Amino acid sequence: AKSDESDRDDDRDRDEEEDDGRAGGKSVFMVSDGTGWTVDHSVHAALGQFEHCLADRGCAVNTHLFSEVNDIDRLMGVIHQAGAEGAILVYTLADPAMAEAAKRACQMLAVPYLDILGPITDALGSHLNVIPLGLPRGAPGRKSALSKQYFKRIEAVDFTIKQDDGALPQNLHKADLVLVGVSRTSKTPLSTYLAQMGYKVANVPLVLGIEAPKELFQIDQDKIYGLTIDPTFLRSIRAARYRHLGLGKETKSSYFDMEHIRTELQYSRELFKKNPTWPVIEVTGKAIEETAAVILRIYHERKNKYVIPRISKRY
Amino acid sequence: AKSDESDRDDDRDRDEEEDDGRAGGKSVFMVSDGTGWTVDHSVHAALGQFEHCLADRGCAVNTHLFSEVNDIDRLMGVIHQAGAEGAILVYTLADPAMAEAAKRACQMLAVPYLDILGPITDALGSHLNVIPLGLPRGAPGRKSALSKQYFKRIEAVDFTIKQDDGALPQNLHKADLVLVGVSRTSKTPLSTYLAQMGYKVANVPLVLGIEAPKELFQIDQDKIYGLTIDPTFLRSIRAARYRHLGLGKETKSSYFDMEHIRTELQYSRELFKKNPTWPVIEVTGKAIEETAAVILRIYHERKNKYVIPRISKRY
Ligand SMILES: Nc1ncnc2c1ncn2[C@@H]1O[C@H](COP(=O)(O)O)[C@@H](O)[C@H]1O
Ligand SMILES: Nc1ncnc2c1ncn2[C@@H]1O[C@H](COP(=O)(O)O)[C@@H](O)[C@H]1O
Ligand SMILES: [Mg+2]
Ligand SMILES: [Mg+2]
Repeated sequence: AKSDESDRDDDRDRDEEEDDGRAGGKSVFMVSDGTGWTVDHSVHAALGQFEHCLADRGCAVNTHLFSEVNDIDRLMGVIHQAGAEGAILVYTLADPAMAEAAKRACQMLAVPYLDILGPITDALGSHLNVIPLGLPRGAPGRKSALSKQYFKRIEAVDFTIKQDDGALPQNLHKADLVLVGVSRTSKTPLSTYLAQMGYKVANVPLVLGIEAPKELFQIDQDKIYGLTIDPTFLRSIRAARYRHLGLGKETKSSYFDMEHIRTELQYSRELFKKNPTWPVIEVTGKAIEETAAVILRIYHERKNKYVIPRISKRY
Repeated sequence: AKSDESDRDDDRDRDEEEDDGRAGGKSVFMVSDGTGWTVDHSVHAALGQFEHCLADRGCAVNTHLFSEVNDIDRLMGVIHQAGAEGAILVYTLADPAMAEAAKRACQMLAVPYLDILGPITDALGSHLNVIPLGLPRGAPGRKSALSKQYFKRIEAVDFTIKQDDGALPQNLHKADLVLVGVSRTSKTPLSTYLAQMGYKVANVPLVLGIEAPKELFQIDQDKIYGLTIDPTFLRSIRAARYRHLGLGKETKSSYFDMEHIRTELQYSRELFKKNPTWPVIEVTGKAIEETAAVILRIYHERKNKYVIPRISKRY
């Protein structure tokens, strides 16, 4: 019964965030001939600039993502709907005829609009001195995804999952990155986030009174990153985990005990001090992608030894 | 020795893609006061429009990501470097003074440039009738990441990892999404990708001669998605897995046997036919994020029953 209860709670949480029938708030229609993740990403970065107003719902926003909009009829349907709902239209359409049609229809229907893909494609086209293809990612005849990067990502995810939570220390040397920290310093979500980008990640939990695996000190020390966190913040995360998962009585109360948390973090900081090669990264108040960005900046800085740290790739 | 060999191979692979000292090719400098993932995402979507030329290296591109560029000195350093390397500068800078400084310096040094964040922020600001904050994501005083969405993501990743590869069938009912398919239909990378977005995902492998867990047929059938794949494509993925992981002789040769692969896929298609509620998704030639987009489109379509399928969220 307990577990059913918490399930229903979760559903309520999600509906609260995603309920679209709800009245009030301006609408943002995001349209792509592909997945829509690019336009979604850009809109959410920009929405960060209105958080002061979104947090108190003074300017509530409903975003709606329309993916795989590949024909003119569907495009026009979405734009008419945008007009009806008083939405702004933000789009990525690789076919210039589709992009132009979107622009004209918006102008005719007085729907505010912004092209996300056009300007960057034009700028890169001029820079490279190459005419863009004008074909969406899913178009017939496009290169398949069966690239080296595709395999690298899949293998990185498989590796990373198998190495979660200190498993298989004998494989630590195969990782690109090894994350070390006490429970709930976001080791697992960080690991899978980085794996998705093609890095093989292992994470090793630090537990008071249990020695870290000897392999940790035998592998290339440049791969290892320490994670640290503010004790009050950590306590609230553990409490939330408790509420969410409904951990039973078997969970030691020391898990939430402030004194215990401080001792645990002290122990981890001492270990980090003994291993000065390990960068120590503060995760307090950082989103997963923010901590990941810091780790990758240091990783590539060490690898490439630029004056201005950068992450570089060749295509 | 075998395992050391393959490690070194992996390193070579990565260097081939990321070696920046290599001569030739145009440079793209991506600058952000935050993580840089937004500008990176936009540039990569646009680069898709030049794949015809990138594939044969006729117009090789070196991308360089500079994250956390938060002060004017570092910004000017990067722009001077862009001038020296003949790069285009693409940036997201939330502080209008920084964005303006970037623009002026590029004009002075004849560096081509494009502002990614400014246009979308201005468009949303007009639409919402709110003045943007002008503060980067890491600025002091910004809201911490300790939001509901933060916990949802972390719990979704934890849940998903525990449910990988058919583990804990008794928890299947707690998943938002359940992915079903034979080995190497990208169930695991799809699951962690979707988990990162806050969905609790379970995946259940279909193995010839082993019955699927009874729980699969007892839970809400609307949660279940079948994955299917072209047999030739599947064979090449399995062969690559073999090469990458160096699976030993214990791997049955039937794993690569075309006849066996066909029978296996036939079995999965029959199961899908018996369960017509499960949408069947073709993964052949699709990147993980492409398959994820299809799954989420159907998921939200079923949930919200719009005429034009959309993924909606409220802020
Ligand atoms: N590999 C690719 N090849 C061609 N176009 C792409 C590629 N990736 C993304 N795009 C285009 O970039 C825009 C954003 O893609 P998406 O993030 O999938 O919505 C869409 O117009 C896609 O058609
Ligand atoms: N939550 C946020 N609050 C304020 N600004 C943000 C937020 N997320 C992203 N941005 C800004 O959007 C741009 C892209 O962010 P990023 O993807 O981290 O490079 C940067 O200029 C960030 O400062
Ligand atoms: Mg963990
Ligand atoms: Mg798997």
